[in-house]
Amino acid sequence: MAANTVGLLGMGRGTMNRQNDEQFMQEALRLAGEACKREEVPVGAVLVYEGRVLAGDHNRREEWQDATAHAEILVLRRAGQLLNSWRLPGATLYVTLEPCPMCAGALIQARVSRLVFGCRDPKAGAVVSLYDLLGDRRLNHQVEFTEGILREECAEILRSFFRQRR
Amino acid sequence: MAANTVGLLGMGRGTMNRQNDEQFMQEALRLAGEACKREEVPVGAVLVYEGRVLAGDHNRREEWQDATAHAEILVLRRAGQLLNSWRLPGATLYVTLEPCPMCAGALIQARVSRLVFGCRDPKAGAVVSLYDLLGDRRLNHQVEFTEGILREECAEILRSFFRQRR
Repeated sequence: MAANTVGLLGMGRGTMNRQNDEQFMQEALRLAGEACKREEVPVGAVLVYEGRVLAGDHNRREEWQDATAHAEILVLRRAGQLLNSWRLPGATLYVTLEPCPMCAGALIQARVSRLVFGCRDPKAGAVVSLYDLLGDRRLNHQVEFTEGILREECAEILRSFFRQRR
Repeated sequence: MAANTVGLLGMGRGTMNRQNDEQFMQEALRLAGEACKREEVPVGAVLVYEGRVLAGDHNRREEWQDATAHAEILVLRRAGQLLNSWRLPGATLYVTLEPCPMCAGALIQARVSRLVFGCRDPKAGAVVSLYDLLGDRRLNHQVEFTEGILREECAEILRSFFRQRR
């Protein structure tokens, strides 16, 4: 117990942030698992506002036959309804997979402050892989980001999904 | 009447397409006008499938407090519901303003065949102004596009809206 206390006192802000990031990404991963059960590509997202999860969802493209029903879009929409504001400054969006151009664009539109994602998407990622949309200073808003939180778990749930469908 | 007939017979395919494009853009412009009345940034869109308008809408960001409620997103979503398919090959989307990264990304996600837009958006356009998303061969789908149909009318409704709000 003494060791724990010392451990906690010894933690820098970075360590605490990383712990929170992992905790929220774990919730996004749980939602990706729900998507899997419904035969949707397993990507999950949560939006955190004032330290708690305000909205969470997963990809529902097949269920709704809606090309725009990526997890990020659904979560941004729900958060806007709940806060009665399409602008979401101060919010952090956690998502298991690097956002595509549509979803990265939506984060900018919603003025989200920060994005945390799990694994990269080399084929369509618009944050680091193919584009750097969130850092483009020609646009009217930029979004900070952190990548690689629970990277392996986030990648594995996708790999396993596509392996089973082959 | 004889002159009309001769005129029609004398038209090349390009002329006929341009006439159709103007007709559908006129409908998108009418929807932009509706947005204006509701104090939304006046952008309208219609999705044309098999030669007719399947879905049309305008920006509803303020009404719904939803950052993703751009005209293009709403029309793609509705078309997916109506056709019970998130993939919309063969569809043409008409929109009064050059799409932003979110909306250009959504057109790619929905596998739309063609985009027609009115005026450019030098601050956020992702088709010709800041990015060339629709032509990016690294992505799994490309979208043909035509620009400048009713360009002046599409630009003027926006200019007039922002003039009145200043």
